[in-house]
Amino acid sequence: MTDEYAAGNGLLNRRLFLASGAGILAATSASAESLTVPEWTKHPGAWLAPYGQPSKFEANVSRGPLAEHNALYESGPGSVRSPLQFLEGMITPNGLHFERSHNGVPDIDPEQHRLVIHGLVKRPLVFTLNDLSRYPMTSRIHFVECAGNSGALYNKTPTAGTAQQLHGLLSCAEWTGIPVSTLLDEAGVDPSAQWVLAEGADAAGMSRSVPLAKIMDDAMIALYQNGERVRPSNGYPMRLLVPGFQGNMNVKWLRRLKLTTTPMMTKDETSKYSLLLNEGKVAQFKFPLDAKAVITKPSPGFQLKAQGFYEISGVAWSGHGKIARVDVSADGGKSWAEAALSGPVLPKAVTRFRVPWHWTGQEAVLQARATDDTGYVQPTRTVLIGNRGNRAAYHNNAITSWNIATTGEVKHVYA
Amino acid sequence: MTDEYAAGNGLLNRRLFLASGAGILAATSASAESLTVPEWTKHPGAWLAPYGQPSKFEANVSRGPLAEHNALYESGPGSVRSPLQFLEGMITPNGLHFERSHNGVPDIDPEQHRLVIHGLVKRPLVFTLNDLSRYPMTSRIHFVECAGNSGALYNKTPTAGTAQQLHGLLSCAEWTGIPVSTLLDEAGVDPSAQWVLAEGADAAGMSRSVPLAKIMDDAMIALYQNGERVRPSNGYPMRLLVPGFQGNMNVKWLRRLKLTTTPMMTKDETSKYSLLLNEGKVAQFKFPLDAKAVITKPSPGFQLKAQGFYEISGVAWSGHGKIARVDVSADGGKSWAEAALSGPVLPKAVTRFRVPWHWTGQEAVLQARATDDTGYVQPTRTVLIGNRGNRAAYHNNAITSWNIATTGEVKHVYA
Repeated sequence: MTDEYAAGNGLLNRRLFLASGAGILAATSASAESLTVPEWTKHPGAWLAPYGQPSKFEANVSRGPLAEHNALYESGPGSVRSPLQFLEGMITPNGLHFERSHNGVPDIDPEQHRLVIHGLVKRPLVFTLNDLSRYPMTSRIHFVECAGNSGALYNKTPTAGTAQQLHGLLSCAEWTGIPVSTLLDEAGVDPSAQWVLAEGADAAGMSRSVPLAKIMDDAMIALYQNGERVRPSNGYPMRLLVPGFQGNMNVKWLRRLKLTTTPMMTKDETSKYSLLLNEGKVAQFKFPLDAKAVITKPSPGFQLKAQGFYEISGVAWSGHGKIARVDVSADGGKSWAEAALSGPVLPKAVTRFRVPWHWTGQEAVLQARATDDTGYVQPTRTVLIGNRGNRAAYHNNAITSWNIATTGEVKHVYA
Repeated sequence: MTDEYAAGNGLLNRRLFLASGAGILAATSASAESLTVPEWTKHPGAWLAPYGQPSKFEANVSRGPLAEHNALYESGPGSVRSPLQFLEGMITPNGLHFERSHNGVPDIDPEQHRLVIHGLVKRPLVFTLNDLSRYPMTSRIHFVECAGNSGALYNKTPTAGTAQQLHGLLSCAEWTGIPVSTLLDEAGVDPSAQWVLAEGADAAGMSRSVPLAKIMDDAMIALYQNGERVRPSNGYPMRLLVPGFQGNMNVKWLRRLKLTTTPMMTKDETSKYSLLLNEGKVAQFKFPLDAKAVITKPSPGFQLKAQGFYEISGVAWSGHGKIARVDVSADGGKSWAEAALSGPVLPKAVTRFRVPWHWTGQEAVLQARATDDTGYVQPTRTVLIGNRGNRAAYHNNAITSWNIATTGEVKHVYA
């Protein structure tokens, strides 16, 4: 099999399994007793439910906080993260989409909710849900990522944690809604307008200023997520979607858009979501999320039980466009193998990557590196910290390193 | 606006909203009181849950049986349908994916479940879930449709019902799993093998014979649905996925694949799922589902409240490949306008279509007609019944007609 190696420490050619059966040999030989009838086949099963739920055996696949000792709060600000290490494909199921709220999840009656468009427009407008149902809609698959995702990689020593704990403020869904440009065209945009204040109806009054150009380009009033109405924790009955921009700008529970000449300098864009740099400098209004890849399988919490074949798999995304390629290293970045990308590869959406790997039982350091279709290449942690310092809490897209010990244990390291 | 008309009875050019604001005027003018602070903004909201649920205000968006007077059963065979009229986009959320079971939903312990591959293979194999987790996976978006979907259109008079009741045995998800060909390559297929018996571990022992060529082409052992593990009612811990083939062949709770020279003539492919034709003839083993389009918005249950602009939207799919185009008529098939297709347009997946419509308040008959990339065009009901008779219970893909009354009421009719 040596001529099938694509890079050091056992990385195999990504086309290996398209061409041949490759002898994984994880199965055992079947015999007559393999076909005995299990208990659950002997009696009629349960009824069909109006709204389905996962198996009780999957109760550990749930959203959770950054650290295990952080209890879920009863109200107020906080976040819960998608369990990336248990998920597959590109779509995050709605029950496991990450959530960040600045003052809890409001209980909004859709009949009473209104969306107001005002400020620098010819005709200020107010929309009910029923009004909005008349407008033409668009459906697109996009990720949403919190600006604070992967923030632990700014820490001076590697934080122990799972893919969920370190990178789980990232999810991807098919969103359906109304292009904001349609509603602004109806309101009539004043030529002096340059920015749009978006404000939520939650108790935090979460509000951000978004460039009008972005709003007119591809922003959406999202009403549906993966086919059904957006859920309360993700903005019911409607949220702003600004594809590729940091999560908090996709304002949930959206109640108004106000067109202005300048950004409004809200509390949410001054006290938070600015990037502290070296020498007292601050980068404000860094909106799109740069390309990032995270290996989810294997990742901390997995235990490799035997040497031999494994599939390395993970998620990659870019706020600037499509993922062009993902490279994977098993030797801490010394050599790289190009991963296979699972289609459809869509702009500002999660792309699943996969690469076959033969683990020899030796220590290994797994890394994944995303390149997007602008040509941008995800930096190492050393390069990112070198450029930016480590006082910034946001926009950390450094390459993550998972150490595989000879025992098969997987651990977050800096390498 | 007359030069924007694309077909009779108010159908507009599908590019209308790409080019201009078009003046829908469903909103009302905003004033100061539009921005009063609602009750839910005045106090912190609810906590974030480990596994999210839809809003309580969306409780009517649920799966249900064919007819309203059919109660959900407690156990045994039955089905529940996706609420197509309330859904958007191409993805069906897992909680609303249609279900059909022949003897209830088994409560399978994944640790004890086994998949056996035997029959005409060199090395019979047995796989645990843990074994399977070692194999390379693939992710693809595919619809699943029950062969009995839309069966009411064989009735001599139009059955009253919603899109859900008439066509809701159709859903679409991103499936992730292992190509069956990888596992069969490992078992070593005997050259004499032509068919594969797939059997479920449910109390019905649901079993179907699938051509080996299809299995080697694009069949998958599906372990994940929209990112998370397949749910119990959709086959937990694993189902066979045979993209584009009738739903029951995507055997749920899959426990074995047996390679054979001929189909096994199981109870599920003789007493059921054969197509009764005219003059005592029967069509057996009609596997792929032919192209179909269904308008979901508006559809029965909707009430148009005023004349003016509406978006007509719906779902189209083909078991033979991609949807190439969808045409929509507002005058019962006399004239047609081409609908816009919402990308990505994928093979054997649901494609959302949309077309703008100006309702003048007159009676209208809405129809949608799918064409797939083989050139196949969805037939009218008259043509389908003419060719096939109306004794067949399955594979009805005739064009559906929704009548819009001058009152705005929407009703299923034959036209």
